[in-house]
Amino acid sequence: MSVWKRKDLLGLRDLSREEIAAILETAKSFKPLLFREVKKVPTLKGWTVANLFFEPSTRTRVSFELAEKRLSADTVNISSSVSSVIKGETLLDTAKNLRSLVCEIIVIRHSIAGAPHLLAKRLADVGVINAGDGINEHPTQALLDMFSMQERFGRIEGLRVLIVGDILHSRVARSNIWGLRKMKAEVSVCGPLTLMPKGIDKFARVYTNLDEALIDKDAVIFLRIQRERQNSGLFPSLREYHRLYGMTEERMGRLSSKTVIMHPGPVNRGIEMVPMVADGDRSIILEQVTNGVAVRMAILYLISTVVRR
Amino acid sequence: MSVWKRKDLLGLRDLSREEIAAILETAKSFKPLLFREVKKVPTLKGWTVANLFFEPSTRTRVSFELAEKRLSADTVNISSSVSSVIKGETLLDTAKNLRSLVCEIIVIRHSIAGAPHLLAKRLADVGVINAGDGINEHPTQALLDMFSMQERFGRIEGLRVLIVGDILHSRVARSNIWGLRKMKAEVSVCGPLTLMPKGIDKFARVYTNLDEALIDKDAVIFLRIQRERQNSGLFPSLREYHRLYGMTEERMGRLSSKTVIMHPGPVNRGIEMVPMVADGDRSIILEQVTNGVAVRMAILYLISTVVRR
Amino acid sequence: MSVWKRKDLLGLRDLSREEIAAILETAKSFKPLLFREVKKVPTLKGWTVANLFFEPSTRTRVSFELAEKRLSADTVNISSSVSSVIKGETLLDTAKNLRSLVCEIIVIRHSIAGAPHLLAKRLADVGVINAGDGINEHPTQALLDMFSMQERFGRIEGLRVLIVGDILHSRVARSNIWGLRKMKAEVSVCGPLTLMPKGIDKFARVYTNLDEALIDKDAVIFLRIQRERQNSGLFPSLREYHRLYGMTEERMGRLSSKTVIMHPGPVNRGIEMVPMVADGDRSIILEQVTNGVAVRMAILYLISTVVRR
Repeated sequence: MSVWKRKDLLGLRDLSREEIAAILETAKSFKPLLFREVKKVPTLKGWTVANLFFEPSTRTRVSFELAEKRLSADTVNISSSVSSVIKGETLLDTAKNLRSLVCEIIVIRHSIAGAPHLLAKRLADVGVINAGDGINEHPTQALLDMFSMQERFGRIEGLRVLIVGDILHSRVARSNIWGLRKMKAEVSVCGPLTLMPKGIDKFARVYTNLDEALIDKDAVIFLRIQRERQNSGLFPSLREYHRLYGMTEERMGRLSSKTVIMHPGPVNRGIEMVPMVADGDRSIILEQVTNGVAVRMAILYLISTVVRR
Repeated sequence: MSVWKRKDLLGLRDLSREEIAAILETAKSFKPLLFREVKKVPTLKGWTVANLFFEPSTRTRVSFELAEKRLSADTVNISSSVSSVIKGETLLDTAKNLRSLVCEIIVIRHSIAGAPHLLAKRLADVGVINAGDGINEHPTQALLDMFSMQERFGRIEGLRVLIVGDILHSRVARSNIWGLRKMKAEVSVCGPLTLMPKGIDKFARVYTNLDEALIDKDAVIFLRIQRERQNSGLFPSLREYHRLYGMTEERMGRLSSKTVIMHPGPVNRGIEMVPMVADGDRSIILEQVTNGVAVRMAILYLISTVVRR
Repeated sequence: MSVWKRKDLLGLRDLSREEIAAILETAKSFKPLLFREVKKVPTLKGWTVANLFFEPSTRTRVSFELAEKRLSADTVNISSSVSSVIKGETLLDTAKNLRSLVCEIIVIRHSIAGAPHLLAKRLADVGVINAGDGINEHPTQALLDMFSMQERFGRIEGLRVLIVGDILHSRVARSNIWGLRKMKAEVSVCGPLTLMPKGIDKFARVYTNLDEALIDKDAVIFLRIQRERQNSGLFPSLREYHRLYGMTEERMGRLSSKTVIMHPGPVNRGIEMVPMVADGDRSIILEQVTNGVAVRMAILYLISTVVRR
């Protein structure tokens, strides 16, 4: 794995095609472990990984925790409301303390974009993994999305991938766009123009009509709607949103037979998609969840090869 | 243990006498482990058990967690307020995610009766253990109660067991009544008529006078009073409750010399019983706690023999 | 380690010089483990340690949890708001339950002084470690402070140690004063007279002027200011506090070249000290954090040699 030289995974924007391929390949080698009788390897025995979550997240936290335990690492969970952290200094103090407690890897989710980068820069001997920073990036989610596509289609290059929803506020969309383009997929986005980042058309083909957008796509990622954004003025009603951008049975009927349906979870059933779509045979949403553990094991392992002193 | 064929433990209503006996026997074989210097066996090494608690519970959660760790399983704790779970679908989504994260066994406590049954039915390859569902059942509590009786008296058949308190709202009472009757104990209940389920007299002898009820009993289980039910109109004042249904020193004096005092914990001292009863030599309340770990180890083990793919 | 005969660590007031020395020596032997590739020894494999925190504390809890995991113990974390614990009996009930669940060591933090002592007395076969009880003691903090001084200066005897801040309400100060005096250090304290305990001058030299107090000291421990005490009337404004008792660059300039700056963390930057002091080369604050894990491993180990049945 000599291509991997980083002690941190901060975002897909920074990674090369070769680095992303190295992660996906390593994840592929870890995946069979998840279905063995003893789902454990001693790779990180004696290591300590701190999961530092400043935003609530059951799914991502549990996925990381299981990846760590399957590598035999010791884990420490620290959850904190952002309200108790007033200054960037305090975040850095928390992280420096974890380093002094001899945690070698910190997984961090934070509402402020760039928080993981600050830690990575200031803690020279600690590996930092971004588990979501503000609306910036959520690289492990995009990597598990790409892993799931590669597993399904045998390749990422040339795949036509559509991302549907609130592109403007989505770190999942942002990481996928960086990553998929590096892997030479064709990326399109679809959603209300009010929820499109400025200049997005330089990176992805932009649709506002879902029916048009769905034509000839290999994979469609529906983003989770943040209900709290409802009153922002940027956003139609939930009913209207579902009518315009939700996946319905009727739309499924017109879809190409090979297209897969993806979602980072948890699905707002009846909004991003109807239950029959989420639970249907074209949905790979639960495969994404399984692949998340393999991808996170791969990242932890690769980072450990660099951090190891 | 060929009698055990179930991937789930949902309630004692469904179990046969032979199945209950198999659990109690397995628990008996695990109990000595709790007093060994190294309190661990590798039985579930590499397995993952998710503890999914939608109602707060320190005791039951810690007891399960220790049982899991002593079997060398990896554990994940997920606590969630019911308020954040609006629809049954969401519970199922959470559980499906845990399956996809490759958790083989889910321990679930939920305020809705039947929630564990829904999961068990929909997740064909995951073991589900009911840690309390609404006012329906709390099978592991009843099993540890029965284990404690068997340990003390050498048998359950023919024992005269009295359950005292709010029978109507008690899943502990319900599970004990199902289980004890299958094991051929004679079950009686005692409490205000307003707190008796309709038709209970078909399953147990009903007393409203505690002094009468206590005569010639082998074991008396006092149920924990839910203080929040106080203003329901069904319930006397705490002082009145204690006077009528609380265990006092005077009542202890009139008790048969072999009768044991039980309680699922935590005791409201001065309400269900005075401290001298709870801490006295006839109380086996703390033995119940120890036995809970052995019984939960047994259930986890038996279920693992069926879930193991 | 034949000098150690205690099943509990309740406070430094009770310990002999020899016992403190035994802890520091044992910690010294554990410290190199923290920098090995596999940071684990099997010393407490199969043991269960319950961390019972009735006051919120991320740092101390994580430090204990890591110490336990590095000794291969199983750990259970129980956090509880004091509000849910109305009576001392209930605390004792919780602890008795943990004993019945076969937890051999309980680490307890509680807002009531003496809570750990109650448990230690009533649970004859369980080791109890005080992780902070009200304003009484915080012995593991003082031990890690002393360990850090010994590591830096090669000895504690004869060291001139100054403690600055709210001495009256500080369990850290109290434990340090007991411990340092036993180890024959010269202890001074500095702070507003309103925040000095009555009779403190029998145990330590008392300063109210920081500039005078700093002269010729080897180690200066700055205590964390509890901002919630601000409106108590005992306390100057934060700005005034910093002016009178805060460590500034100017004061650093006048300090003896060997003096080290200590703080139990987390530092209120700009109040107890300016950031350049906290992060400067005279600060050993982060070394204290690392040493805390070694000291807690030592205490857990020593106690286990007595508890082991």
